[in-house]
Amino acid sequence: MIRHTVAFTLRHPAGSPEEKAFLDAGLTLADIPTVGKFERLRQVSGKNGFAWGFSMEFADRTAYDAYNSHPAHVAFVRDRWVPEVADFLEIDYVPL
Amino acid sequence: MIRHTVAFTLRHPAGSPEEKAFLDAGLTLADIPTVGKFERLRQVSGKNGFAWGFSMEFADRTAYDAYNSHPAHVAFVRDRWVPEVADFLEIDYVPL
Repeated sequence: MIRHTVAFTLRHPAGSPEEKAFLDAGLTLADIPTVGKFERLRQVSGKNGFAWGFSMEFADRTAYDAYNSHPAHVAFVRDRWVPEVADFLEIDYVPL
Repeated sequence: MIRHTVAFTLRHPAGSPEEKAFLDAGLTLADIPTVGKFERLRQVSGKNGFAWGFSMEFADRTAYDAYNSHPAHVAFVRDRWVPEVADFLEIDYVPL
């Protein structure tokens, strides 16, 4: 299992309709067939500057690659992520 | 629920006995009463420089605070974390 996480901040003001619209659009990623345990997360530590997170799990690298190249993911990155995300950090984990 | 995660790198060489000893010592954190779903993780994304991660879940802020002030956590930070960790980033999530 590979857990793919990304912490991010948006260009939109906190509490804005645009912020909500982005987070709602992120739900489309959960429908990509190889995505499991999709979560939308609020980042609450004061020790970093990120406000939000997405987390999802893949069975293996093949499933992860299928997500990356899936048209719904490619469209989300192009149409929402690139224009609306100000900063982000991807962290991927495999349990020991 | 608050999911507390920390991505980190060690001062020890990859594959060294010291590395294994640190990761094994981390298991003691799982025994702190308010800690749930403790995981030791390998960080596998090439998009950041971290090699490892710990993840755990708390019922609420009170449970998180109890962990932070628990003698076993304080001892782990003092005796293992500070001398053996080269870099780290804490990210805490609350599901939407």
